[in-house]
Amino acid sequence: MDDPLRHHGDVEVGAGLVDFAVNVYAGPRPPWLDAALHQGLDQAGSYPSASAAETAIAARHGRHPTEVLATAGAAEAFSLVARLRPWRRPVVVHPQFTEPHAALLQAGRAVTEVVLPEPFELDPGTVPDDADLVVVGNPTNPTGVLHPAPALTALLRPGRLVVVDEAFMDAVPGEVATLTGHRDPGLLVIRSLTKHWGIPGVRAGYLLADAALVAELRAGQVPWSVASTAAAAMVACSGDAAVTEAQRRAVQIGEWRRDLEQSLSTMGIHHIPSQASFVLAEVGDRAHAVLRRAGIAVRRADTFPGLGPSWVRIAVRPPEQTRSLLDALSALGPDALG
Amino acid sequence: MDDPLRHHGDVEVGAGLVDFAVNVYAGPRPPWLDAALHQGLDQAGSYPSASAAETAIAARHGRHPTEVLATAGAAEAFSLVARLRPWRRPVVVHPQFTEPHAALLQAGRAVTEVVLPEPFELDPGTVPDDADLVVVGNPTNPTGVLHPAPALTALLRPGRLVVVDEAFMDAVPGEVATLTGHRDPGLLVIRSLTKHWGIPGVRAGYLLADAALVAELRAGQVPWSVASTAAAAMVACSGDAAVTEAQRRAVQIGEWRRDLEQSLSTMGIHHIPSQASFVLAEVGDRAHAVLRRAGIAVRRADTFPGLGPSWVRIAVRPPEQTRSLLDALSALGPDALG
Repeated sequence: MDDPLRHHGDVEVGAGLVDFAVNVYAGPRPPWLDAALHQGLDQAGSYPSASAAETAIAARHGRHPTEVLATAGAAEAFSLVARLRPWRRPVVVHPQFTEPHAALLQAGRAVTEVVLPEPFELDPGTVPDDADLVVVGNPTNPTGVLHPAPALTALLRPGRLVVVDEAFMDAVPGEVATLTGHRDPGLLVIRSLTKHWGIPGVRAGYLLADAALVAELRAGQVPWSVASTAAAAMVACSGDAAVTEAQRRAVQIGEWRRDLEQSLSTMGIHHIPSQASFVLAEVGDRAHAVLRRAGIAVRRADTFPGLGPSWVRIAVRPPEQTRSLLDALSALGPDALG
Repeated sequence: MDDPLRHHGDVEVGAGLVDFAVNVYAGPRPPWLDAALHQGLDQAGSYPSASAAETAIAARHGRHPTEVLATAGAAEAFSLVARLRPWRRPVVVHPQFTEPHAALLQAGRAVTEVVLPEPFELDPGTVPDDADLVVVGNPTNPTGVLHPAPALTALLRPGRLVVVDEAFMDAVPGEVATLTGHRDPGLLVIRSLTKHWGIPGVRAGYLLADAALVAELRAGQVPWSVASTAAAAMVACSGDAAVTEAQRRAVQIGEWRRDLEQSLSTMGIHHIPSQASFVLAEVGDRAHAVLRRAGIAVRRADTFPGLGPSWVRIAVRPPEQTRSLLDALSALGPDALG
C-alpha cells in the first residue's frame, strides 16, 4: 500500500471476490438515470456545461443556482477547498474519509487531526479554537455515525470555514441532520451522486455554499471539469422521481443494515451503530486477510487515523448476500471477536 | 465577456447559428468509439481506472505506460503543469490557445508572453534564456502554424520544462513534427481526444513525459479524475482502427481546408496558411458581428494575445457547409478585406 490516506475500498475488490468493500448501493441503476447518462453521451459532441445541473440541484435543495458548484465527484470539491486558501490551521475530524486530508496535504498544508474516541460522536469542544478550516463527514465514513445538526453548526464562527461531507447523507431516510438548507457564509456542504446512485465511474458531485464562496471555488476549477454524462446525471438525480427513489433506497438500506447489525450482535461482534450504508465492526486483526482468502472483500480500516487493524468496514448489502459474509465470520470463530 | 483568456469558441455558438467557431471534427462519431463510450457507462458502477488507457496510449506512441498520464481533457493537464512547481519565469508563446496561460494565472504565477509576429512562426531565440517553463502549441491554435520539430527541441535546456500542446496534431497527416516519440526529461507533450474525435463532453486527454515527471504530475491529480467513459475512449482511440481513421480524417481535413483557403485567396481575404482544422483569417473589424447576424458563428480572435479584432478563426468544414460562410463573406464586400 503506497499512501494509507489514498487507500480506498475500490482497490480491495479483486477478481472473484464478493464485494463488501465499496459502499455503492447494491441495486441496478434506475432506468431514468441510465437513459440520462446515455443522453449525456449523445450530447458529448459539444463542450459540456453544468448550468442546467446547477439549476436542478439548487431547486432540489431550495437554494439559488449561484450557491451550487457542480464538481467532478466529491474528490474535485475536496481539492478545490484545499487549494482555496493558504489554510493556517486546517482540522480534519477523524476517523473519516481520508480524501479531504489527502487533498490538503497535496495542496501543501499541514493538517491537524482531531481523533474522536469511540463511539466516534462529534464533540465540537475538541476542535482547536484557531482552526480556520474544519472538515467533518456526516454521516461519517467509516464509522456510520450521524452527527446531529447542532453539533455541526456549533463549529461555525467568524474566520472559519466548516466543510461537511454529506456524501452518504442520501442513505439517511429523510436526510435528517442535513445542512444543505442551512445558509451561513462559513458553511460548505459537499454531496456526491457516487454511492447512492451507484455511478462512481461518472464523477458527479457538487457543493453548496454561500454564493461568494462558490464563485471563489469556481474560479479555481479546471474548465469543463464536469463531463456531459455527469451533468446529465445531476439533472436526473435532482428530479422528483429521484427524490422518491432516493428515499426508498434509504429505507431499504436501513432494513438491510438492521439485519446485518443484528447478526453481528448475535455473534458477539462489536460494531458501531450505523446510520449509513456500511457498518464499522471490530472483527480482530486476522479477519481481513482470512476473509479475503475465503473470497470476501471487506474494507480494511487501519488506514483511517484513529482505527487499528482490528476494525473493518462492511458495506450494507441485501441479506442474502450478507449471509456469505456472516458465515465466513462465524467460521473465523473466536478470532472474529478481536 | 468576463475573462478574455477564458473565452472559447463554445460560447460563440448560439441557438440556430451555423458553427464555424468550435474546431471539432465535422463528421459522425465512429461506431467503434460510440460503442466504447456506451460500454464505458456500463462500467460506471465501479470506480474508474485509467491503467488500461495509459497502457493503450503508451503502445500507440511507442512509450512506456509510466510515461503516460491520462487526464480529464487537456485542460486538466494544463492545470497540473501550472501547479507542478512555483515557476519563476513561465513563458507562453502567443498567439495560442489561452488555457495554459489562464491555468498559470489561476495557480498564482506571473506569465511572460512571447508574442510572435506574423507569420507566427516560432523563433526559439525570442524566448528569454531564464524561462523555466515554455508552453507552445503545435500545430498552433488559432494560427494553424505547424512548427518544425527542431524549432521546438531547440528550446530544451537544463532547468527548463518545454510543454508542447499537440491537441490538434492528429489533424496533421502523418503527424509530422510530433514530439510524442522524443524522449527528454525536459519535454512534456499534451494531447487531446476532444477535437479529432468530436468528444469535448467526455473530457479525455493525456500527456507524455519522462516517467519521473509523470509521477510528480500524477501526485497532483484529483483522484479518479478520468471518468470510465473517458478511459474507454482512450483505449478505443489508441487502437489500429483509430489510427487508420485518424489519418483518413487528417487527409480529409486537409482537402476541405485547401478548398476554404483557395476561396479566401480568390476573394482576396488575407489568411495564414494552416496545417490544422481551422484557418486564421483577417476579415475586418465588423465581420464577426455581421456574420453572427447572418446566422454564422466564427471564433473571434481578439481574445488571443497578439491578435486584433480584424482576425477571426474559421473551423474547417466540408465544402458544402463552407459555402454559406463564403457567401456571407462575399456579401460583406470590401469590409471583409479589413
